[in-house]
Amino acid sequence: MPYEKVDTLAINTIRTLAVDATARANSGHPGAPMGMAPVAHVLFNRFMTFNPKNPGWVNRDRFVLSNGHGCMLQYALLHLFGYAVSLDDLKNFRQLDSITPGHPEAHDTPGIEVTTGPLGQGFANAVGLAIAQAHTGAVFNKPNFELINNYTYMFFGDGCAMEGIASEAASMAGHLQLGNLIAIYDDNHISIDGDTKCAFTEDVMKRFEAYGWHTQHVEDGDNDLEGIEKAIVAAKEVKDKPSVIKLTTTIGFGSKLQGTGGVHGNPLKADDMKQVKEKFGFDPEKTFVVPQEVYDMYHKHAADGAAAEQEWNKLFESYGKEHKDLHDDLVRRLTRDLPEGWQNKLPTYKPTDAAIASRKLSETVLEAIHDAIPELLSGSADLTGSNNTRWKKAVDFQPPSLGIGDWSGRYLRYGVREHAMAAVMNGMSAYGTIIPAGGTFLNFVSYAAGAVRLSSLSHQRVIYVATHDSIGLGEDGPTHQPIETLAHFRALPNMMVWRPADGNETSAAYYMALTSKQTPSILALTRQNLPQLEGSTIEKAIKGGYVALENKDANVTLVSTGSEVSLCLETVKKLGEEGIKARVVSLPCVEVFDAQDKDYKLSVIPDGIPTLSVEVMSTLGWEKYSHEQFGLNRFGASAPYKEVYKKFEFTPEGIAKRAKATIDFYKDVKPLRSPLNRAFTQLI
Amino acid sequence: MPYEKVDTLAINTIRTLAVDATARANSGHPGAPMGMAPVAHVLFNRFMTFNPKNPGWVNRDRFVLSNGHGCMLQYALLHLFGYAVSLDDLKNFRQLDSITPGHPEAHDTPGIEVTTGPLGQGFANAVGLAIAQAHTGAVFNKPNFELINNYTYMFFGDGCAMEGIASEAASMAGHLQLGNLIAIYDDNHISIDGDTKCAFTEDVMKRFEAYGWHTQHVEDGDNDLEGIEKAIVAAKEVKDKPSVIKLTTTIGFGSKLQGTGGVHGNPLKADDMKQVKEKFGFDPEKTFVVPQEVYDMYHKHAADGAAAEQEWNKLFESYGKEHKDLHDDLVRRLTRDLPEGWQNKLPTYKPTDAAIASRKLSETVLEAIHDAIPELLSGSADLTGSNNTRWKKAVDFQPPSLGIGDWSGRYLRYGVREHAMAAVMNGMSAYGTIIPAGGTFLNFVSYAAGAVRLSSLSHQRVIYVATHDSIGLGEDGPTHQPIETLAHFRALPNMMVWRPADGNETSAAYYMALTSKQTPSILALTRQNLPQLEGSTIEKAIKGGYVALENKDANVTLVSTGSEVSLCLETVKKLGEEGIKARVVSLPCVEVFDAQDKDYKLSVIPDGIPTLSVEVMSTLGWEKYSHEQFGLNRFGASAPYKEVYKKFEFTPEGIAKRAKATIDFYKDVKPLRSPLNRAFTQLI
Repeated sequence: MPYEKVDTLAINTIRTLAVDATARANSGHPGAPMGMAPVAHVLFNRFMTFNPKNPGWVNRDRFVLSNGHGCMLQYALLHLFGYAVSLDDLKNFRQLDSITPGHPEAHDTPGIEVTTGPLGQGFANAVGLAIAQAHTGAVFNKPNFELINNYTYMFFGDGCAMEGIASEAASMAGHLQLGNLIAIYDDNHISIDGDTKCAFTEDVMKRFEAYGWHTQHVEDGDNDLEGIEKAIVAAKEVKDKPSVIKLTTTIGFGSKLQGTGGVHGNPLKADDMKQVKEKFGFDPEKTFVVPQEVYDMYHKHAADGAAAEQEWNKLFESYGKEHKDLHDDLVRRLTRDLPEGWQNKLPTYKPTDAAIASRKLSETVLEAIHDAIPELLSGSADLTGSNNTRWKKAVDFQPPSLGIGDWSGRYLRYGVREHAMAAVMNGMSAYGTIIPAGGTFLNFVSYAAGAVRLSSLSHQRVIYVATHDSIGLGEDGPTHQPIETLAHFRALPNMMVWRPADGNETSAAYYMALTSKQTPSILALTRQNLPQLEGSTIEKAIKGGYVALENKDANVTLVSTGSEVSLCLETVKKLGEEGIKARVVSLPCVEVFDAQDKDYKLSVIPDGIPTLSVEVMSTLGWEKYSHEQFGLNRFGASAPYKEVYKKFEFTPEGIAKRAKATIDFYKDVKPLRSPLNRAFTQLI
Repeated sequence: MPYEKVDTLAINTIRTLAVDATARANSGHPGAPMGMAPVAHVLFNRFMTFNPKNPGWVNRDRFVLSNGHGCMLQYALLHLFGYAVSLDDLKNFRQLDSITPGHPEAHDTPGIEVTTGPLGQGFANAVGLAIAQAHTGAVFNKPNFELINNYTYMFFGDGCAMEGIASEAASMAGHLQLGNLIAIYDDNHISIDGDTKCAFTEDVMKRFEAYGWHTQHVEDGDNDLEGIEKAIVAAKEVKDKPSVIKLTTTIGFGSKLQGTGGVHGNPLKADDMKQVKEKFGFDPEKTFVVPQEVYDMYHKHAADGAAAEQEWNKLFESYGKEHKDLHDDLVRRLTRDLPEGWQNKLPTYKPTDAAIASRKLSETVLEAIHDAIPELLSGSADLTGSNNTRWKKAVDFQPPSLGIGDWSGRYLRYGVREHAMAAVMNGMSAYGTIIPAGGTFLNFVSYAAGAVRLSSLSHQRVIYVATHDSIGLGEDGPTHQPIETLAHFRALPNMMVWRPADGNETSAAYYMALTSKQTPSILALTRQNLPQLEGSTIEKAIKGGYVALENKDANVTLVSTGSEVSLCLETVKKLGEEGIKARVVSLPCVEVFDAQDKDYKLSVIPDGIPTLSVEVMSTLGWEKYSHEQFGLNRFGASAPYKEVYKKFEFTPEGIAKRAKATIDFYKDVKPLRSPLNRAFTQLI
């Protein structure tokens, strides 16, 4: 179908909407929307299948704007195609409580698949979406029922191309031969510092070839709509490689400042806006103008998408007759509910059971539940044998041609790519049919911090299996021993940080991680063995904190997590020998504990006696739950772990000494309130 | 010079030392040392110039083991060449308080240049060392005085090659045409998960070509010493590109498990050790054996290095006669002392001066001091105009052939590569002649967390210019607004986190950042304007915390940082109208405040009245300095910043409300102690 006047009109409508919205907000990025409007038009109107009335349709094509600062491009498209994004929403671009924030947020805006803006994230999210499609297709597609066959399209710019996370994800996508992934590289030669010549002179396409991608170049991305179309057609024909199309464009096309950094992140000046609109045949006196024929064309495409969904629904209904279990399983997965009764598979432990490292306890959970929860997809950033993330019969998720797995495999070898792993998991979670769990050492979750933050912000149910959680890893030493890491992620909103003390608590951590549909989790797990506690149960631990050892006339409460809880229990005996009574609280997840009612919380950390926290890392934040803190506000040491614990006095003796100092220090304070009693409530 | 028996003996000595040390520790990684011993021997004994008796000689060749888990390779070499690493130190590998920890730590071991182990870091450190050489050479070399011409050699493995940080750094090195950087890629096809086929099938050399590197391949890295030598010679001849030599090796060469993952991270079994030693002609009953001829050969090379340093010292002495100022400047830089009187350049402000954003105040500092401190090298991760990191007359550090700067330039365009920027800065700092400062948004310092941690652990004087420090950035929204970031880095040992409230505090932050020779700093700076405070001076602020407004009969202390300090001062007026007296404390750097004496600290946050902290991000950790906390334990919002502040009640009204609740809540508590009073002292 040839391109006509209305196509140009649509492209210029997108451009002028971006100009108007950024001008009205006096903030935002007009350059990328103006430069990428042509490819966006061709892609959305000629290739992508979606139903704006049901943005949740599972087999829709996915679109990711990795250069998320250009989000007015995306908001304009969502509006024009008839998603629940109104012209008023565009007018409220970057305003308080609007659905059109400064960068696209999946949770806020219908039609936004993933939260982007932090550069490189969207690139890796798209790889995750493509992996999810390949996997979901392999699991559910049957002869005559190609239920899941959508493509993932992604735009990225020079900024994303420079980010390490995108390099990691691109290498992974090439290895995985993701033919369902098509990326458009906006080669506009401009980043915030100006011409990319100043910092970025590599041969990007050659690099992608090295990763195993199919590459093309469209030289005139501003005008060559046919060329863009042909390239996307060619990309779709390549089934065993991801595709990237380098599209040379002019940033801020139409502006007097086009092709310069001046149009990247600043609204156009009044006279520039005027000439742009005149150039494009728009009335310079009017704003937010959408010609009816543009609406008509796009709404027709949207109607085709709605019809495609209807067709699909019929297909899915027939599928239900031939493959009832699979049908029902897919329906269930999309609700994000877990299969009934799965939790009965969770292992429980008695105090007489053997001492086991919590990384091993985690493996036992995965071994026990993987059959019951088919959407669980595990993996590791090249630490499989250390993270214990793989159940014995797991099949690797791999392109079948490699002969070491297949697309239905539920174990992903992420390689040593922590940051991409986290963002790929965000993409997989966003797809809607998978719960991803990925392992690395707790210390190296920090490498992924940028993506972990977006797990939280975009409400993805992602599980970080973070082993080797402290100085307890021993010989690897300070370069690998987390000190600041738990404080970091406890300060991150909408993140559950779990540090289980034994088997029952590990099961509880998984229970909460898997059933919290809108919240990611970090499970901090030990390398060293931990005894099974007397007082632990799954039911208690899922409250985030509980009394592990009660003592009605206690002089002090010891509150602790993970490997230090059993040390505290030993300390109680030692204190008892000196006539001092102590009680012990296990607090495996402060975020979940915070959500309990106040009476319960005060029964755990009560008024009247002082509390000492015990955790072998930064004390930062423990003041919220304790009067005094015993921790490690320095780097660790390389040695067998028991020696390291001793060096830093994490022994019953060392804890007892500080417990006595705590009791002594608070004996004159009246009233001695629980630290949980606060003068006012925090905003949430 | 042909290779002889003694060369093979030396290589096998390195291998058996690695076998013995990991066996004795029952921990560690023998595989990489056994596989890379041949190239290490050729490189150290035939190419590198260094003096083991003076590891600090500025023109020594630098060596970085990016695959730091193979550190027994490095420790063995250091011992054999005569550094202050004894055979007993090797026997104490991975033991408490030894100088041979589980991964190489620059601060602990003579001859270790940078702290590696976290994968990819060493790669980027090496790029930083090479940049520092190029820059230092350009500044100090004069006709007939090629003072600074060392090479930087770096080993990396598949793990490093997969990490995004190494990709970023490799792209940067290619752009910068660093001909003084030579990397050896240990292509052993094994990572922890086994064959790299499972996750890493890209064409690594093609990727490096795309970055602009010179590439070579030596196919038999186990035996072809001549081939290795030729390749290094060829690499040295390429002056306008960094070089990488892909060296195909057998991991754990000599072991029964050679070429498998089994030898990567586990000591050899007893029978394997026996056969390895027999194979190499060593007595299987003996451990830690070094044949005298190996010592002799290596000590001769070390003596040559010492002679080379002597020659250099003479050259430097003559240089001092012709170029006295430069001579003295280099001598001074190596002491890490700053030029006398530089601090007089620091800008100071009066309350009547205009309100200015602290990112602009930071720019004014750089503008004022850059002439006085020639070792200051600034830059930004593609946010120059937003971070305000560039002084007006700055010249870019660029290869002269690009025509946009030169090697003596003191402004580095890092590109959108935050993680590499941080690690490159660590490398530059480690070189010894540069103080690097690099900018990005505070939120994206998190992308660099892995390297920031190593700034702290390895005591590098690196300055992170972290602008857009809060919801005060406004429209960019939650994806860009830090909540958890300050808590994260405050929990990191040996890191100064500064959040200045005005111009004098910004100058104080730079004063401390520049004069703390062993500690990195993060300067959290605002996008929005801040008024100049009545009570601030550089002298007060360099204590980390001080009384910004005293009030002897105060009912409450408001303790705050950065943009919220002036809000607290307004709140005092508001509370005064209601007859409530408040005092205000500014706490721009808690780490520095912690180091003051107790009397001073208690004069700032005294006993007897309650304290409320006010900071627009996570409250985590503020309990240490306040009884109650007003913060933001949720994500922010996209809108003009004043509206965002209002939404979250960060207004004089919102603060006053909470101050009153705080006063009320604590009125019955006796004694009401300052939160600075603790029951016991933390270990440090």
